This record gives sequence, C-alpha cells and structure tokens, in this order.
Amino acid sequence: MSKPFLHNDYLLDSPTAAHLYHAYAEKLPIIDYHCHLSPAEIAEDKRFSNITEAWLYGDHYKWRAMRSCGVDEKYITGDASDYERFRAYCTVMPKLAGNPLYHWSHLELRRFFGCELTINEKNCDEIWRITSEKLQSMSARQMMVDSGVTLVCTTDDPADSLEHHRALADEGFSVTVLPAFRPDKAMNIERRGITAYLSRLGSANGVEITDLDSLCAALRASLDRFCALGCKTADHGMDNFVRYASPNPYTANEILKKAIASDGADVTDEELSLFQTQINRFLGQEYKKRGMVLQMHFGVFRNPNRVMFDQLGPDSGFDTIHGQNCIASLASLLNYLNQNDALPRTVLYSINPVDNAAVGALCGSFCAGEAGCTGKGGMPTVTQGSAWWFNDNIDGMDAQMRSYANLSGIGNFLGMLTDSRSFMSYPRHEYFRRIWCRLLGGWVDAGLLPDDEEMLSELVCGVCYDNAKRYFNF
Amino acid sequence: MSKPFLHNDYLLDSPTAAHLYHAYAEKLPIIDYHCHLSPAEIAEDKRFSNITEAWLYGDHYKWRAMRSCGVDEKYITGDASDYERFRAYCTVMPKLAGNPLYHWSHLELRRFFGCELTINEKNCDEIWRITSEKLQSMSARQMMVDSGVTLVCTTDDPADSLEHHRALADEGFSVTVLPAFRPDKAMNIERRGITAYLSRLGSANGVEITDLDSLCAALRASLDRFCALGCKTADHGMDNFVRYASPNPYTANEILKKAIASDGADVTDEELSLFQTQINRFLGQEYKKRGMVLQMHFGVFRNPNRVMFDQLGPDSGFDTIHGQNCIASLASLLNYLNQNDALPRTVLYSINPVDNAAVGALCGSFCAGEAGCTGKGGMPTVTQGSAWWFNDNIDGMDAQMRSYANLSGIGNFLGMLTDSRSFMSYPRHEYFRRIWCRLLGGWVDAGLLPDDEEMLSELVCGVCYDNAKRYFNF
Amino acid sequence: MSKPFLHNDYLLDSPTAAHLYHAYAEKLPIIDYHCHLSPAEIAEDKRFSNITEAWLYGDHYKWRAMRSCGVDEKYITGDASDYERFRAYCTVMPKLAGNPLYHWSHLELRRFFGCELTINEKNCDEIWRITSEKLQSMSARQMMVDSGVTLVCTTDDPADSLEHHRALADEGFSVTVLPAFRPDKAMNIERRGITAYLSRLGSANGVEITDLDSLCAALRASLDRFCALGCKTADHGMDNFVRYASPNPYTANEILKKAIASDGADVTDEELSLFQTQINRFLGQEYKKRGMVLQMHFGVFRNPNRVMFDQLGPDSGFDTIHGQNCIASLASLLNYLNQNDALPRTVLYSINPVDNAAVGALCGSFCAGEAGCTGKGGMPTVTQGSAWWFNDNIDGMDAQMRSYANLSGIGNFLGMLTDSRSFMSYPRHEYFRRIWCRLLGGWVDAGLLPDDEEMLSELVCGVCYDNAKRYFNF
Repeated sequence: MSKPFLHNDYLLDSPTAAHLYHAYAEKLPIIDYHCHLSPAEIAEDKRFSNITEAWLYGDHYKWRAMRSCGVDEKYITGDASDYERFRAYCTVMPKLAGNPLYHWSHLELRRFFGCELTINEKNCDEIWRITSEKLQSMSARQMMVDSGVTLVCTTDDPADSLEHHRALADEGFSVTVLPAFRPDKAMNIERRGITAYLSRLGSANGVEITDLDSLCAALRASLDRFCALGCKTADHGMDNFVRYASPNPYTANEILKKAIASDGADVTDEELSLFQTQINRFLGQEYKKRGMVLQMHFGVFRNPNRVMFDQLGPDSGFDTIHGQNCIASLASLLNYLNQNDALPRTVLYSINPVDNAAVGALCGSFCAGEAGCTGKGGMPTVTQGSAWWFNDNIDGMDAQMRSYANLSGIGNFLGMLTDSRSFMSYPRHEYFRRIWCRLLGGWVDAGLLPDDEEMLSELVCGVCYDNAKRYFNF
Repeated sequence: MSKPFLHNDYLLDSPTAAHLYHAYAEKLPIIDYHCHLSPAEIAEDKRFSNITEAWLYGDHYKWRAMRSCGVDEKYITGDASDYERFRAYCTVMPKLAGNPLYHWSHLELRRFFGCELTINEKNCDEIWRITSEKLQSMSARQMMVDSGVTLVCTTDDPADSLEHHRALADEGFSVTVLPAFRPDKAMNIERRGITAYLSRLGSANGVEITDLDSLCAALRASLDRFCALGCKTADHGMDNFVRYASPNPYTANEILKKAIASDGADVTDEELSLFQTQINRFLGQEYKKRGMVLQMHFGVFRNPNRVMFDQLGPDSGFDTIHGQNCIASLASLLNYLNQNDALPRTVLYSINPVDNAAVGALCGSFCAGEAGCTGKGGMPTVTQGSAWWFNDNIDGMDAQMRSYANLSGIGNFLGMLTDSRSFMSYPRHEYFRRIWCRLLGGWVDAGLLPDDEEMLSELVCGVCYDNAKRYFNF
Repeated sequence: MSKPFLHNDYLLDSPTAAHLYHAYAEKLPIIDYHCHLSPAEIAEDKRFSNITEAWLYGDHYKWRAMRSCGVDEKYITGDASDYERFRAYCTVMPKLAGNPLYHWSHLELRRFFGCELTINEKNCDEIWRITSEKLQSMSARQMMVDSGVTLVCTTDDPADSLEHHRALADEGFSVTVLPAFRPDKAMNIERRGITAYLSRLGSANGVEITDLDSLCAALRASLDRFCALGCKTADHGMDNFVRYASPNPYTANEILKKAIASDGADVTDEELSLFQTQINRFLGQEYKKRGMVLQMHFGVFRNPNRVMFDQLGPDSGFDTIHGQNCIASLASLLNYLNQNDALPRTVLYSINPVDNAAVGALCGSFCAGEAGCTGKGGMPTVTQGSAWWFNDNIDGMDAQMRSYANLSGIGNFLGMLTDSRSFMSYPRHEYFRRIWCRLLGGWVDAGLLPDDEEMLSELVCGVCYDNAKRYFNF
C-alpha cells in the first residue's frame, strides 16, 4: 500500500522497525561528531534572510546536483538573484527523485518550516514566501537547539585561534561546540603556499617553524590549545591515496626543509609519502597520549575538472571518487603506527563504497583489546565510520551497516554524523535512524534476532547516541 | 503469493509499480540508441528458417551460457544440426534460472511466437515446431515494427560505405535506422592489420592516409558522410584501459607514421596512450561541433582464452571484465577534452559493476551547465549509461539506477538500449521498464516520493523514451 | 509480522521458499568438500569437556569478533579460565547482532544441545551448565553423523603421512573422510623455512629434493599417496596476489635451487612469480590427468598486524582482504594452464566480494565443453566457489549466488562448504540452504521462474548436494 510522502513511518517497513524508531531512536539527542559548521556563525548566531542563503549559498552537494540537471552556472554560483536560484533548484527537484537531496530538502522544509509542500516549480513561490517569513524568527543556534543537538565537533586548522570556540565556551551556549583538529595543510607539504602556511601555523602557536622539530613543537602547542577547549578528535583528509613509506626521521626533516625552501615545489611523490608517514606517527602518538580519536578520510580525487577549478576554486562540487585501491598502504600505515605506540582509537572512512568489505575487515585486524578492557568488552580500537559523502544515502548507509554487522559487532557502530556546512542538516540523523531501525527490525522479522526489548533498545540507542559518547569520551 | 511465470505483473511487486508500468511505460515506443544489428539484414528484410538461426547463429551470450553448462562446442559453433543445437540450448535452460537469458528467451517466445511453453528438453520439439511454422511469416523489419521500435542506431565503421543506410533512407522504412560512428579500428594502431585498415579507411573517404593530418581528414570526411545520413552518436570501445597521456600533436603524428610503417608492431604502450589521447581530442572536437553524443565503453578484457581465440576468433563469447581501475585516467582524459573544447555530450559505460559509484560521481564532475541552459535545466553533459553487458540483468540494472539516483538526477537517465545483434531482443526494453517502475513504485510505497501522477509519469516517460530523444536530438 | 528467533521458517520469507526448503533441501545429506578439520581428531573421536573447548579454543573468527568488541586478549588467547572466556563471548554476543557468528552460535546451541536460550551475559551460566552436561555424551564423529554428513575433505600438506586418513579408511567410519592436497608450502619458496620444509617433503615421499625435477617427483609421489586414499581435490591458497609470469622451465629450476641454498632469502618477487607459474602448470597437468578438481583461494592479506603476529603467530584472526585486483594475472595464469593441457576443473574463490562479477565472468571465459560432454551438457570447467570467509554471511552468499546466476548457470553451482576447524559448523549448510531457497522462491514469487516442481527440486538438490558429488566425482 502506498503511504503519504514522508509520513510518520516512512522508511519503517514493519511494525518492529516503527516501534524501535518511535520508542527509542526518535527521542534521542544528537551528537554530531564531525561537521563543517562555521564556529563564527554559531558565535554570531547567524540568521538567513531567505531560503537561498540557508540552502544554496554554501552547499556544493546542491550545486553539483543542479549542474547534473543541466542548470546554467549563472543560477548556481553566478549572478542570478536569490529568488532565481531557488526557482532553478525547485525546477530540477523532481528529477532528483531518490536522491538524498530530495529527501533532505523536503525533510528540512517540514521540520524547520512546518511546510509540507512538494518542492517543484509550481510550488516555488509559495515555499519562498513561507520560508522567507519563517526565517525572520529563526537563527543558527535555535536550529541546533530545536533539532535536539547537544554536541557538535567543528573542523579546525591547527593555525586557528579558536576564538569563537572560546567565546562559546565562556558564554555557556547550551550546545557543546568542540573544535576538531584537522592538520591536512601541515601534511600536504608539496602544495604551493606551504611556506606561508607554516609561518602562520608557527605564529599561532608561538614557534618559528624551520624544521621537523619545530613543526612538531607547533603542532603540540596547537593540540594543547585544542584540548584545553575540550577537543576529543582529529581528522585527517587523505586525498587520493593513503601514503605510506618506511619512514626515517632524519630524512623527513630534510624533506620538510626542502619543502619550506621551495614552497613545496621540490617535494617528490616518494618524499611526500615518507614525510606523511612520519608525521602520522608523531600525531598518532600525540592523539593516543591525549585519548583523542583519529578520523581518517580517504579516496577523494580533488578538483579533476581544471576548467571549473580555475573558475571557482576548491570545494565547489567537482570532487570525485579516486577509485585507486589503498588498502595495502593503509594496512602498512596502521601497522607502523601500532608498532610505535601511535595508533589511537581510529575511525576509517573511504569515499568508495566498494571498499566497505576491505576497510571493515582491516579494522578487525587492528583491534586487540584496549588497555583496561575486560571480559565485558569495550569499544573497537579501529572501526569503520558511517557511509561518507557520495555514500550518504539510503542504499549506501544500508550497505555500510550490513557490511559492518557481517564483519564486526554492529552494536559498537558509532552511527551518524552530518559532515555538513548547514545548520539545517540535522534531519539526516532522523533519516539515518530510520534506516538503522529498518535494518534491525528486518532481522527480527526474519527470525534472525530475538524480539528482546532490552537488547534491541540497547542496540538502537548505542548506534544512535551512546557509542559516539563513549568512544570519543564526550 | 506465487504468481504465474511472466504473468502480466511480473517484476511489478506493488500496485503502484504495476500502475506506472501499465499506464505509461508499456505503451511507449522504443528508441534503441545503441545496437549491433546488421544494416544489410534490415535492408534485405532478413528471414529465418528456424529458431536456431534466429537465436543461436550469432548470439555469443547464448554460446557462453551453453559452455558454462558444459555443452560440447559441437553444439555451439560446431557441425551439429540446427535442431540439435536448439535441443542443447533447451536442455540446459533450466540451469539458467535467474539468468537474463532465461527471461529474455521466454519473453521472446511469448512476444514473437505467442508460445507460453517453458523451455526445456521436454518441450523442445513442440517449441521447434511452433517457431518454425511462425517464422515463415516473420521478417526482421516486421519484428522491429511489431515491437514498437521507432528508431535504432547501428554500429558502423568509418570505412563503411553506409550503402544500406542510404537504401533504407531512400526507401522510407517506417523505423528510422541511423548509423553510429565507431572509429575503434582507427584508434588501435598497435594491432596487426592497421596499415591495410587505414588504406581502406582512406579509400572509403577519398583521402590517402599517410600521417595524422590525412587520418583526421579521412575521419572528418567519414563523419560528414555519417551525419548526412542522420548520425547522432559515436561510440568508442576502449578495451582494457582508458588510455591517457599528456599529449603532443607532433609526437602523435610520428607515432602514427611508425604504426603505418610497421603495421602496428613498433608502437609501444606509452605511444599508444599518447596517440589515443590526441585522437580522442580531435574526435571530441568534431563530435561537439556537430552536436553528436559520444558513448564510451570501457573495461573489457578481450580474448583472454587464446586457445579458443585461435579456434573461433573474436566476439565468440570469451571476453571478460578486466577489473583494472581506470577512473584516474578517465578523469584525466575528460579533463583534457574539456580544456580543449572537445568534450561533447558523453555517456560512460563501464563493464565492471563495481565502478558504478566512481563513474557516476565522475559524471557529476564534468557537468557544468551546457551552453544555452537556463534556470529550468537541461540534460547532463556527461552521464552514466545503462547497465552494460555482464550487468544487463535485473540486479545490475537495479544497482545502476539506484547509484545513478543517489549520485545525480535519475530523471535525466537515458534508459535502455539492447546492444544486441538480434531482431528479437526488444523485450529487453519491456524488462527494463518493469525494473524501473518497480524501483519508482518502491520509493512511493516507502513514503520516499509523493504519489504525484504528473511527476511520476514524467519520470517514467523520461527514462523510458523522452530523455534519449532529447539527449541525442533524435 | 515478527516471528520467533530461528523459528522453523527463519530466512524463508515466502511459502514457496519454505516449501522448497522443507520438502527438499532440509533432508539432503551434507558433503563438505573443503574444511580444516583435524584428521587426528576425527580418528581419535575427539571429545570436549566444555563449550569453550569446542567453540573458542581454535576458532579465530570468534577471537576476531571478541577483539572487535574490545575484549582483552586475556579472555581470548590469554590465561583466563575456560568459563571466563565463555562468559566474555556471551557478554559481547548481543553486539554481534546480524553477524553470522550470532546465527551460527545460536544454531549450534539449538541443533547440538537442544538449548534455545539467547546467548548473553544473563544466560551464560545456564548455557555453560547445559552444554557441559551434554558434552559428556558427545563426540566429534557423532556430531558429524548426527549432522547428516556423508563426506568431508580435510586440508593436508603433501608432506603429511596421511596416517589418520588411512586409519579411518581401514576402520570404515561411516562418514567418508578424504584428504585434499594443499601444496602451498612447496610453492612459497621465498619464505624462511623452505629448505627444511622441502627436506621433510622429500623424506615423506622417498625423494631427495635438490632441484625442480626432484621437487616434481616428490609432489607426484605425494599425489599418488593422496589419490590412493581417494583424494579428489587440491587447494591452492594464493595469498595477496595471483602470480603469473611468462614461464621458463630452466629458470624455474635455477630459482628453486637458489631458494634452497638461501632458505628463501634470495628469491625476488619476479622470480617467485616465475616459479609459481611453472609449478602451477606442473600441478595443473597432474590434477587434470588424475581427474582432480583444483580449488584456488586468493586475495588474502596475511598477518598485517606484526605486533600481534609476533605474539600469536599466523591464523589468529588478524588476516584481512588485500584489495589488489588480480583478475588480469589470474586470466593469464588460466590461459597459460589451458594452453598447456594443465587446466583441470577449477573452482575460484576471491576473498574480496567486489570481485564477484569479474571472477564470475572470468569463469565463463574458460569453460569450453569438457571432453565427453554432449548436447545434454555437463559441468563447467571453471566455476566460482561459494562466498568465502569474510563473505560467508547472508548478504555475501546472496550476492554471490545472484552474481553466479546472472553470469552463468546457477543450476551448476557447487554450493556450500564450511571451511571450518569445528565439528559443530554444519548448521552453516542449513543456513546456506535456506538462503538459496529464499532466492529461488523469490524468483518464483516474482513471476521470474515457473512454479515447476520438477525443475525447482532439481535446482534445490543440485546446488545443495548433487552438483558437488558430480563435479568432484565423489
């Protein structure tokens, strides 16, 4: 039987699934342990004058989708008016049937604006009117609070002053806003601008960076600053490949000095691998010592379209999946970290869904009873993160969770994060929780799991909330 | 509840799916924009004296399936009688449960012969009798017309005279039969026979080919001939790898001259990559100028079994999936074409189903508002083609469409093509349309899409017919 | 409707599926054509004093799962008591929801102990009591007999004396216990210990191994001994890569002599590929001559975690999926064997589920009518094996069978094997058979297969029992 669009039980295809969602998942607060919200916008309690500002100014997922539907760049990043841009988005929306943007956009319209209209050209004006009016009384912080968010981790550069985090902490905003440590720029020493960046990184941390020792000192000082503000996690964005090479501290130092002298130009591929291996070891030790969780994101092919890169710069919706297998080098890197007491709790995210099995299995190879664990068990040392980016959709999440369950203990899965720049992205947690309850309910209904309320509620709550809290030690 | 085999609603697992199929999809005419029909056989209105001629003479899918069931080569390409060969096919048919050949064969039996018998050894004689009788009043053209076909694109070599296409156009056959430009032989300059081929290509186009300039002149002349007969698309079969190397026109010319002098023998792998990159740029510019669509097929490992190749030659049912990842080189090639105004509308087909996500994502990286597009949108510049060859089955089509929807706008998908040498392959469109309606109906039933008749009918008709018409400008 | 956990029809989601399972599959005896049971333990009719001995002493799948749930090594391979270890396993069990271990463990509890308790911390003591009591009257052989097993193939080294197999044959144990030939150690000549191993291999077979000729003589003599005890199959575990290099008998001989002289140390990667290609050819010819089936397992990354390897050695639950594509080298190897009359009936198993399509397609490229086959067909020369290791779960088996059916004739599929070290692993056959009946029933119910009892029962029985019997010539 066809049910209304996004009705109360959408995605919940059995009474068991619906029960698990409504009795447990729906009511849990949200921990968003990896996102790209702007701390400045939280601090200033950002407001939006229209739906285009909220939805289309910064969301390269939507830009990409519009381009795939043949919309002219004028209506995406060009000089069309806010209204024209929203109209263009509405017009192509019906073509995005099945796409997560279709569901997310309609959910956001319902949850934040109470508007149940279908997004299309016909309803564009009415939606524009309703949202414009409603936005006058909305703000970034209120959206977070109303969504049930209790904690977010933003993504921050080691050179950042963290002033907004400090302000938020001082002020006592009811949602905990923690910085997360993202040292990519300090690792990509082959890129133009590295010399200036290292100078900035040094200044921000009271160190002059001239070699490996001083770089490490600066990163250590930065980590101290981050941790003083409650930082619990670092995030490494390893584009294209996971680089590994048998390391050598002396050589790494020489490579870094060469990078500084040439502004990245003289660093070879092999040297980059060597340097990154070494710096991963250093950072891994620091994270482990501090009880931090390392999140590793890999497999992205950045900026394959140079014409559009020259026009719009990075993060404009043109990145893609590299496709190169990097399991062997990832295994070597994890092994090297493990041999050097430099493997903290680690979450692995591949952008390629075909890596689910290999990444999931690899996690198991580096779980070996954390110190202090007992016969009652604890959390996995290395674990697979939720379906990321191009996989953040119903099929991708379902596949990732099935793979996780097949290869490990799904009861330990850390669950959803938004990875988003938008204050309206929290319905993605609702969406995820329904998919998880659907999977779990399906197992019960097939006779593959006992209909044991206590066990089921623990599984639901663990994946939706408790595990992240415990793993990151929030 | 079990329903009869291939009943009216087979594959349509909900009332919504059945409604969408029967109300819209079922009635649409067929555009088959990529197939391997022989223009000569259409021109002569080919007739078949028995079902073996129609089914087993040229279909290497069936040969392969029979071999997988241990049938001796005698009954496949050997000297067994037509009846014995059909009997062998019937005998192994029950083992092919779930295989698309199982469904296709039974559908063809029903749709063309009105025969609802199950294909097996017991029914062999009766089916042989019925089909033999019916075939007396059947012909190639009638099968096309009766299947609702309005347009097909055959696959043609640039050296081809296109005489049959001309004859068909002159005659005014009710089905539009257009040539498609397949220049593979001119690109694979490392293969023995290249010298003779280029000589033939030159003659057919009034040019003596001695270097890159004259090759380009010949291809241009050939394109003029193709386009004069309504050609709208080219097709590149990039075996094994998609080759890319930073190109250099002078070098490409030298490589070609060496290939001609040595009949391919002296061309190295690197030189082949260089040459092919260059020629792809030339052709891309030509296609774009002419408003043609480029279809790229890649990832096939041709002729891995040398014993059988020596015995039967190419295209005998032994090709396989190469498995090598070629996303990075494909991205580089698309980027190079894009930088040189040489990226026409392009459809990407990988033979490896694990490439769905990476290919689908890559398409999005090269969509950037076609000239003349507006806020209302248009079609994607680069788009993923339907599930090809080894993926042309229920699971493969479902996976490709889900992936497409997750990564892009499924409302733009170009839908089905047969890729077939057989005049009886059109029920594959029916099969595809049911799978598409099943997917769409499933979304509606799960509450993931509004039950909006106008939107749904546009989605159904777009994917089944309208999009291909619009994209190729038929 | 939710049904009780592991009820009579679990996994059978339609009346058709339930009928096929209960009417046919459930009653068939079990042939387990690839396992790691200890012949010595069968010969001595091994008994277990508690459930930890039976479940946790040797099963690295369970160890791995426990580590993934953060259990301390003390409770896995350490000095905790048997009871404490079982308690730890029970405690983490709820987290393993959806994991095959969850289903296997509960099935074993039901089928061998008649105990329907849910495994968790609360029920731990009661399960410990019930199983301890019941185990007093249980033995290895009885478990095999009670499970309906009629034949098993163990996994044996060519240097093995096969004394236990001989004893079992002499004694006339009702279950046929055959050796399988696993010559990995003789092929991995780059590993330390190769010199001592070859000396042992020589002694066991009455030959002094000093070069390629004498190695071949020893392997031939060993094969004679194996075949005299009914051996029907060999198994090659090709870790990481499938190695292929254009071979050369003289060179292979030199490489082997170098390996013996240096105890493996001087063998390069390229030399190893060369040697292994050559020895595969030799063995392939021997297998083919003897009518044996070759099983090839590939893609495993052994011992990626060196810290734990140093502590616990190999096969302790740390192996993973390599991820490197090896289709091209596998194709080259099969082609080379085929060209040299050295391609016996062969079963291919990849540990990476993403290889399903490429491996399945490749099989078809090397099926070409076995000698003696007729129009009635027979078995495939090369065929894909059942979902292996990390894929041995509901989703993995379902995906492998769908892929097999799409690419070949599922009616020839060889079906399930346990690959297990445990005498209690036979419920995995039940589990598999239900998944197969579910798939088949689903096709019937969707109108994709006639509801023809004779055909369906042949398909069920073929995959569950008959095909293995016929293919291996048991």
